[in-house]
Amino acid sequence: MEAFSDGVIAIIITIMVLELKVPEGADIHALRPTIPFFLSYVMSYIYLGIYWNNHHHMLHATTRVNGRVLWANLHLLFWLSLVPAATAWLGETGSAPVPTALYGCILLFAAIAYTILQNAIVRCQGPDALLATAVGRDFKGKVSMGLYVTAIPLAFVNRWLSDIIYVTVALMWLVPDRRIESRIEQRT
Amino acid sequence: MEAFSDGVIAIIITIMVLELKVPEGADIHALRPTIPFFLSYVMSYIYLGIYWNNHHHMLHATTRVNGRVLWANLHLLFWLSLVPAATAWLGETGSAPVPTALYGCILLFAAIAYTILQNAIVRCQGPDALLATAVGRDFKGKVSMGLYVTAIPLAFVNRWLSDIIYVTVALMWLVPDRRIESRIEQRT
Amino acid sequence: MEAFSDGVIAIIITIMVLELKVPEGADIHALRPTIPFFLSYVMSYIYLGIYWNNHHHMLHATTRVNGRVLWANLHLLFWLSLVPAATAWLGETGSAPVPTALYGCILLFAAIAYTILQNAIVRCQGPDALLATAVGRDFKGKVSMGLYVTAIPLAFVNRWLSDIIYVTVALMWLVPDRRIESRIEQRT
Amino acid sequence: MEAFSDGVIAIIITIMVLELKVPEGADIHALRPTIPFFLSYVMSYIYLGIYWNNHHHMLHATTRVNGRVLWANLHLLFWLSLVPAATAWLGETGSAPVPTALYGCILLFAAIAYTILQNAIVRCQGPDALLATAVGRDFKGKVSMGLYVTAIPLAFVNRWLSDIIYVTVALMWLVPDRRIESRIEQRT
Repeated sequence: MEAFSDGVIAIIITIMVLELKVPEGADIHALRPTIPFFLSYVMSYIYLGIYWNNHHHMLHATTRVNGRVLWANLHLLFWLSLVPAATAWLGETGSAPVPTALYGCILLFAAIAYTILQNAIVRCQGPDALLATAVGRDFKGKVSMGLYVTAIPLAFVNRWLSDIIYVTVALMWLVPDRRIESRIEQRT
Repeated sequence: MEAFSDGVIAIIITIMVLELKVPEGADIHALRPTIPFFLSYVMSYIYLGIYWNNHHHMLHATTRVNGRVLWANLHLLFWLSLVPAATAWLGETGSAPVPTALYGCILLFAAIAYTILQNAIVRCQGPDALLATAVGRDFKGKVSMGLYVTAIPLAFVNRWLSDIIYVTVALMWLVPDRRIESRIEQRT
Repeated sequence: MEAFSDGVIAIIITIMVLELKVPEGADIHALRPTIPFFLSYVMSYIYLGIYWNNHHHMLHATTRVNGRVLWANLHLLFWLSLVPAATAWLGETGSAPVPTALYGCILLFAAIAYTILQNAIVRCQGPDALLATAVGRDFKGKVSMGLYVTAIPLAFVNRWLSDIIYVTVALMWLVPDRRIESRIEQRT
Repeated sequence: MEAFSDGVIAIIITIMVLELKVPEGADIHALRPTIPFFLSYVMSYIYLGIYWNNHHHMLHATTRVNGRVLWANLHLLFWLSLVPAATAWLGETGSAPVPTALYGCILLFAAIAYTILQNAIVRCQGPDALLATAVGRDFKGKVSMGLYVTAIPLAFVNRWLSDIIYVTVALMWLVPDRRIESRIEQRT
């Protein structure tokens, strides 16, 4: 399952760049229309990198898998697979309100799917398992979801605020989940 | 072979989203034309998820591989590789009769290819092997094929009935193949 | 190296289907223009399947790798990566003379690259190694190259004859390289 | 991490060929507009092959990984993911000054990212580790960066000189990093 998920995330992250249109024209001005897409590409790249990082750490701490976990994992990958299209729409419209809100919705659903997957793995492995103690009450996950829920309606008031929130959440997660990492290191 | 197949299915599942056109325009109405494609994307995603799941379980129960198995596997992947294009046609035409029937044909050929692969693996490993006893008479596989055969002509009478049949088959398979899973657990 | 090569071939085989245009229109006639592409897709799929199969067997019999082998491998993957574009051109022009000849050139260069890779691996492992004895004088490889060399100019006389030759070579290789397979089985 | 990186590079290398437009028309003249793209495709293919090769060697010599290394790796993959779009722009404009300079910038940033990754791995493993002694003062890396820095402004004076520099650097790296390779062989 780890290899398959890594594969899917690797493909999503790479396929996203296909949405980057080759500039029409050969001078420096031709690059301008690609800038908003480029910025949203960078943001989505970081988000997918975060998911890959944490997902990778989580699956490493996973020793048992059942059908529920497999489908929770596919559910997460489903929402992540929508990121490239949402990124392209966000970039092409220069972060218009509806695309900005939709982008937040997809991030929110991905975050929810991640939590469901986490719970499915914890339930499958028992409350004493490594992951359960490492995740704890998942404060960072809950804050992220709260911020997404704030950013989505805010896109219709001031879309730049929404973008700032998305960037903030990304920065908050840039460090891989030290809780799991440190626990694993303690054990080995 | 497992890694290659996982890779191919991972790519098919992800490439499918490339068919999702970025909406033209920046408001909520621009999203409307993408809804039928989105729905067919969800259905195909679930189908490919089911194939990945069961295929993965089947290959795990496989200990010996020969040339016949390798080609039966490539044959299955061939039909699965046509799913993205069929999904796009289904979505773009709003489930018109011909695309609906064609979608069913591809599902039918994939199901036949899966059965051929299953038989090739069983024959390669001998009738007493784990997989042979786990698969048994493959009731669920036969029912699915019967339903596809019904849905294909039905698309020209009432295409929504065909779509309902496709969704029903998907739901029927959403649970991974417990027959194999439980046998494996008994052994380990 | 095996995983990387498997990955690249898996991606090439899947990406090829992206060239398959979604039919414009929703009736049975809309499918017609896709038929020539579909046929060339089937042929290229089988060719790439053959390469995957034999390449996989060859790397399994490989125990030592050096820089020369790595680059010989990338060289083979380069020619295989051109197959999707050549297939699309062949299909879209209904097998016109130039695309038919170009398709043969790419098959020829891929075959030459495969031979170079084979020799590089044999040289790296020594003449007594498993692969060296298994490959022998590589009769089938030489016949294929001879047939490609015949088919390329023939495309300008009668392109259907060239297509028949391509199909013949594919059928000739459909069975995985039994020479290596049987030797491996003898040893294990 | 090795499998994920290999996967991403495999996808980037293959996706690049998607930018190769199928010629419009069926005769030999239709091939002409694709020649500049083809040449830039060959160059980028070799560059990505070099990165894959050296990256692969480096990760093989890596025994410990931390969060800093993971992100340094994603940073490198980010710049490599921009290579296909830059290649397409370079090819479509027949190596116009701005695309030529941009191509050099991406190569430069990728080279910097590779150095950062190398340092992060060395710091993570300690100065006595295999990689640290193998890399030494990284003369070849510094020369490459110097050449890129020269080639970028030169594109506005004589773009062909820039292209020659890019090809020269590629040739310089075509051999995998023997320093690491030979040290590893000494140890095993």
